[in-house]
Amino acid sequence: MILEAVQLHIKTGQSGAFEIAFNEALPLVQSISGYISHELQRCIEQQDVYLLLIRWETLQDHTEGFRLSPQYQQWKKLLHHFYDPFPEVLHYERLDADAGT
Amino acid sequence: MILEAVQLHIKTGQSGAFEIAFNEALPLVQSISGYISHELQRCIEQQDVYLLLIRWETLQDHTEGFRLSPQYQQWKKLLHHFYDPFPEVLHYERLDADAGT
Repeated sequence: MILEAVQLHIKTGQSGAFEIAFNEALPLVQSISGYISHELQRCIEQQDVYLLLIRWETLQDHTEGFRLSPQYQQWKKLLHHFYDPFPEVLHYERLDADAGT
Repeated sequence: MILEAVQLHIKTGQSGAFEIAFNEALPLVQSISGYISHELQRCIEQQDVYLLLIRWETLQDHTEGFRLSPQYQQWKKLLHHFYDPFPEVLHYERLDADAGT
């Protein structure tokens, strides 16, 4: 399993609209083969900052399966205009976990 | 539930030692009231970069319960010398999740 993690900085005052658009966009990513689950987390200390975590079966499910899909074009249209700056997307592999997760 | 998320940049060449020290330090944080679970994730694209996710019952379980504990002094001694730069620790609240998580 691969974790996609991206810290999102939303343009000032647009967080409410972003949250609505995210819910609209969500089925696009959920329809992709290899999508496992996601979390959208809102930062407590910094306004208009979010952490998006998406778990994929493989790296290619995200970098090819999603990014080369028609769904990604729609996702971009719905969400990318909220970001400033455009975020860095990184992928991680789990090393260590306890039974609680 | 609160998510503590921190991106760790480990000094070049010290990632192996960091992973060993992290496993040694782990029971310190796990012993704190309010600790739920953690994930240590290693970045695929960037060498010596990790994402540490710790879930807590409340924000204070981390900021007071852990950081003011004797266990935190030991945690610092085991781990903080690996970080360069010293990381920004942020906390998040979950907005949105699907049944897969």
